[in-house]
Amino acid sequence: MILQSLTVIKLILMDVDGTLTDSRRAISTKAIEAMRMAQDNGLKVSLVSGNVIPVMYSLRVFIGLEAPVFGENGGVMIDDTGVRSFFGIEKPRKLLERLLEEGLATDLITNQWRYCSMGYGPTGKDNARIRKMAQDSGVEITNSGFSWHILNPGQNKGFALKWLMDHYSIRENEAMVIGDNFNDLPMFMDKVVKGAPANAEKELREISDIVSEIPYGEGTADLILRVLSDKI
Amino acid sequence: MILQSLTVIKLILMDVDGTLTDSRRAISTKAIEAMRMAQDNGLKVSLVSGNVIPVMYSLRVFIGLEAPVFGENGGVMIDDTGVRSFFGIEKPRKLLERLLEEGLATDLITNQWRYCSMGYGPTGKDNARIRKMAQDSGVEITNSGFSWHILNPGQNKGFALKWLMDHYSIRENEAMVIGDNFNDLPMFMDKVVKGAPANAEKELREISDIVSEIPYGEGTADLILRVLSDKI
Repeated sequence: MILQSLTVIKLILMDVDGTLTDSRRAISTKAIEAMRMAQDNGLKVSLVSGNVIPVMYSLRVFIGLEAPVFGENGGVMIDDTGVRSFFGIEKPRKLLERLLEEGLATDLITNQWRYCSMGYGPTGKDNARIRKMAQDSGVEITNSGFSWHILNPGQNKGFALKWLMDHYSIRENEAMVIGDNFNDLPMFMDKVVKGAPANAEKELREISDIVSEIPYGEGTADLILRVLSDKI
Repeated sequence: MILQSLTVIKLILMDVDGTLTDSRRAISTKAIEAMRMAQDNGLKVSLVSGNVIPVMYSLRVFIGLEAPVFGENGGVMIDDTGVRSFFGIEKPRKLLERLLEEGLATDLITNQWRYCSMGYGPTGKDNARIRKMAQDSGVEITNSGFSWHILNPGQNKGFALKWLMDHYSIRENEAMVIGDNFNDLPMFMDKVVKGAPANAEKELREISDIVSEIPYGEGTADLILRVLSDKI
């Protein structure tokens, strides 16, 4: 895709860990400033992450975002009116219980705040067996780069992007996504403008329209500022 | 109290809303940078707030703090090992249910994430009656400046400060607190070094050892940098 202009962009949807943060998960203050500037210039700015919804709630409040934001890989949303979960929690919870019983996973502090998925720490034991159990349970396993997640089919970041595009009546070429990891691929859709910081996985950089030379949150800040100044 | 030197300070405990944020609750990136600098210089940096623990968890992760942080006005703590609640939730929950039944309060999204208190939105109706009901229920009512809280007796920010001082074996003159609102008063203890940004309530500014001329999060950043450079 050859980008003629970035001035048409009306929505920026971003991943959090690795995209707004550095390798230690600390958030980039330059990324915060860039997001605020984008919003002040009339763009819708939203986040989608494997994180739990109260974490997304905090980011939304403390960054000062107006659009809804999504947790649990896109399966649950929060805005000023409350929390809305688009998927069930029963299947992920059942699988996690079995993994814990068999010593194949460790529990996470954040699981008590989940609405439609479960997270776990890997033990390194028998990943093939975990995949098989997930398949039999009708759930999917993904890795956010920071932890592992048990999700419902269709519960991915593309779901969140489509919801936002519907909600704001935004066309594909008016939407931009920024991400760094494989779980961002479902929102890296064909006609959508795709950006990646320098630390992004090669597969994401290769299909991106804009790649920053700067890694992590500062790279994402660079991408946002380039959208605002319409420079590729 | 006449401060001879700020170089002895080993711990900084801060409020969040109004102290790290601006009037719209957006966090100051200068405050984030200052907290990181203090921690990199060997100080323990912690937060205590009326916010729920997953919000404090997020702030801790994304700011990159190592010390435990406290939510629900000091009644619950989170660190790398998990959540620890120091008070019960039964009494606050019962009172909230009665206030909701009688139409004296509105519910908050964040109540589902509380361990030892309840928050509510005021309706403006019959505050005297609410105070009386709280007294009869053996709980206390406070206002964080952003919302109202139903708390257990002794559940205040001074509790969190004492816990941290015990935990790290830090004496009163080695601890600094920064806050802006009345619910910060319990941690504004006699021999502890007290700081306030310019927006702080008069009562807090009057008993503070250092008051910044700058309001909100940027004022707190100023105070932290003055501690690091030992300038009053």
